[in-house]
Amino acid sequence: MKVPVATSAEMKEAEKFPLNISDFTNLIEVANDDNMDKNNNVKRTDEYMSMPWFGIDIGGTLTKLVYFEPKDITPDEKNTEANSLRKIRKFLTKNSSYGNTGLRDTHLQMDDVDIRNRKGSLHFIRFPTSEMSSFLSLAKSKGMADLVTAVCATGGGAYKFEKDFMHELNMKLAKFDELDTLIKGVLFSELRHTTECYYFNNARDIRNSQKMAYDFSRPYPFILVNVGSGVSLLAVYGPNNYKRISGTSLGGGTFLGLCCLLTGCTSYEEAIELATKGDHTKVDKLVKDIYGGDYARFGLPGDLVASSYGQMHNKDKQGKVSREDLANATLVTITNNIGSIARMCALNEKIDKVVFVGNFLRVNSISMKLLAYAMDFWSEGSLKALFLNHEGYFGALGCLLQFNNSDIAEYIS
Amino acid sequence: MKVPVATSAEMKEAEKFPLNISDFTNLIEVANDDNMDKNNNVKRTDEYMSMPWFGIDIGGTLTKLVYFEPKDITPDEKNTEANSLRKIRKFLTKNSSYGNTGLRDTHLQMDDVDIRNRKGSLHFIRFPTSEMSSFLSLAKSKGMADLVTAVCATGGGAYKFEKDFMHELNMKLAKFDELDTLIKGVLFSELRHTTECYYFNNARDIRNSQKMAYDFSRPYPFILVNVGSGVSLLAVYGPNNYKRISGTSLGGGTFLGLCCLLTGCTSYEEAIELATKGDHTKVDKLVKDIYGGDYARFGLPGDLVASSYGQMHNKDKQGKVSREDLANATLVTITNNIGSIARMCALNEKIDKVVFVGNFLRVNSISMKLLAYAMDFWSEGSLKALFLNHEGYFGALGCLLQFNNSDIAEYIS
Repeated sequence: MKVPVATSAEMKEAEKFPLNISDFTNLIEVANDDNMDKNNNVKRTDEYMSMPWFGIDIGGTLTKLVYFEPKDITPDEKNTEANSLRKIRKFLTKNSSYGNTGLRDTHLQMDDVDIRNRKGSLHFIRFPTSEMSSFLSLAKSKGMADLVTAVCATGGGAYKFEKDFMHELNMKLAKFDELDTLIKGVLFSELRHTTECYYFNNARDIRNSQKMAYDFSRPYPFILVNVGSGVSLLAVYGPNNYKRISGTSLGGGTFLGLCCLLTGCTSYEEAIELATKGDHTKVDKLVKDIYGGDYARFGLPGDLVASSYGQMHNKDKQGKVSREDLANATLVTITNNIGSIARMCALNEKIDKVVFVGNFLRVNSISMKLLAYAMDFWSEGSLKALFLNHEGYFGALGCLLQFNNSDIAEYIS
Repeated sequence: MKVPVATSAEMKEAEKFPLNISDFTNLIEVANDDNMDKNNNVKRTDEYMSMPWFGIDIGGTLTKLVYFEPKDITPDEKNTEANSLRKIRKFLTKNSSYGNTGLRDTHLQMDDVDIRNRKGSLHFIRFPTSEMSSFLSLAKSKGMADLVTAVCATGGGAYKFEKDFMHELNMKLAKFDELDTLIKGVLFSELRHTTECYYFNNARDIRNSQKMAYDFSRPYPFILVNVGSGVSLLAVYGPNNYKRISGTSLGGGTFLGLCCLLTGCTSYEEAIELATKGDHTKVDKLVKDIYGGDYARFGLPGDLVASSYGQMHNKDKQGKVSREDLANATLVTITNNIGSIARMCALNEKIDKVVFVGNFLRVNSISMKLLAYAMDFWSEGSLKALFLNHEGYFGALGCLLQFNNSDIAEYIS
């Protein structure tokens, strides 16, 4: 099942847009009270925004926050920098945890980044969306309400929590679409962080496959699979030319929810750790459990899962599986389903690069290697699974970079 | 997302083959020792097979058996009918349960059926594949070993249990491919049983949608979705022209296995009954739980499931869901995933009829109505979900009808 490389008009169109640094970063602005219309959509202005610069992506499970720390502050600026702004900068950059549940992913920090002619570092912070009220209290206690009148936000929570931001912090949310910002974030990261993209070489040999850098500088077209609580699949043909082609509700939230129910675990990290030690073949029914071997006529190997959890209607078999086995089966089920849907989308769109992002991939090399294997095996090597280091932060990053309704393509030579 | 009706060469080819009764049923034969080659594949012969006529489909969870009862036995025949043959006929047709777990679906019985110029009734019997050894003992006790030297079998178990049939009953299995027999069974049923095919009218209104007869006499092309323990998806262009286009391991075995784990239930019937009384919206995370309403830009309604089991990482929420809610969520998750994959396949193949079969649909109107809804809603009315009354028996039926490697098309005018 070879996937032909697209020769369509879309493909040709895509070729016009290699990633290009020039101008791209000069046109970034964030929102303030003055450049938003009455629906809190950001109006295009030529003025730079005042600090601090944030992007926030309020997802179904996690809230992701990207903060730009300016590193080129002149002595003059330092003298005039508001006390509260300095306080926030120091609070965010000197700590790696905030309150009880906020965390900074220090290993993801991006230094020497130019945004709107300012040089600085990008910091990546996350907390559970269920802790939004603690976040708002903390932000209030740090003086955010006095300093910032508007913040760029995306994800469903930008709508759901809009009133809470206004009520608690007197802060407007400038709402950007989560798929628009996702793509902007992905493209910016690849530009600014040449070690961003990777694949697994030797993908067919899951135990020995290795992470390898991938040159994603000519990205188009690609399938973008965003695995958060649920899953969205996009076909991206150019910096401002994409479509949402599919989605599934079986995502990271399903993995975690089912693992909590089946194993009594209480966190994503614990679920992943359990899954790492388990064996799904005790839980699932494999092709060989039904056929006694391969189902050769349709190329289905004996080790393929024929029915996920397919042995668990049997009380005896139930008694023989461990929490680890159940967690592993859950991870394999969700991952393979995502892989299969992604492959069908790639086939439909005649696209050979499939980029997986989203926090489901965090500390989850099992899923990444399985996806790399599945893409390679079922396409007979025609499809390539790609991954990005900043996994779940592209929406928040794109939000920090986003500007209103302007066509980014016209600013890319 | 309108699905264009296919105008391809395949579509034109398909038009050549409306279902046609003439000749079709005169060419059916079953296997015996004389017409099988050394690999137990059936050789084409012109001789009629001796009774009894069976087809058996040994699946991952259930074994399905179809038995042809001749109703046109002449007094002469009656006198010469072997005692053991009569005993088997009476045993099968006078009972509706066999041993501890065998059941005859009496409501599915097909009367006045012509097969190979014999007139009779088709009986539909099932038992769990895990009870194979009891079945073999029972068959032995009824004298099958003396009477039958070979039986037509399909499903993975035709391979897995081949040696057991030989050892226990001295019986060869003539093995047919499960997808070949599935299609033969579907086409025969529609021919012989004009009330076989149905759809749900008013599909958007799940509570009030009604089962309605559908004229499937010009069936091609259609997508055939077989939901057993796992799921296979075929594109069928003519009586002998089809391809397997996709599959998923999230099938009926997954629903039952997960329900047993999550609710402690012990049977499919119990799982369905629980699911009928539950509410998945307490278990899943909906679009409106994330957005506060619809995600309008991409047409995702607030009631859509964004993340299956997406609330279950939260201990408080876990404490508030019932076994019924968990069973309902499991049914909705598996059903919607199958629906989504089927829709993608239909879209790829440019086919507008999607036929769902397999025992996952037995006593399961929730799933059928959900599939009818999903096909209609997401395709804006272009796709039609169709169902067949004999749900899971088509493989076994096709097996009873099957003959060796001949092109069925040449026998259909």
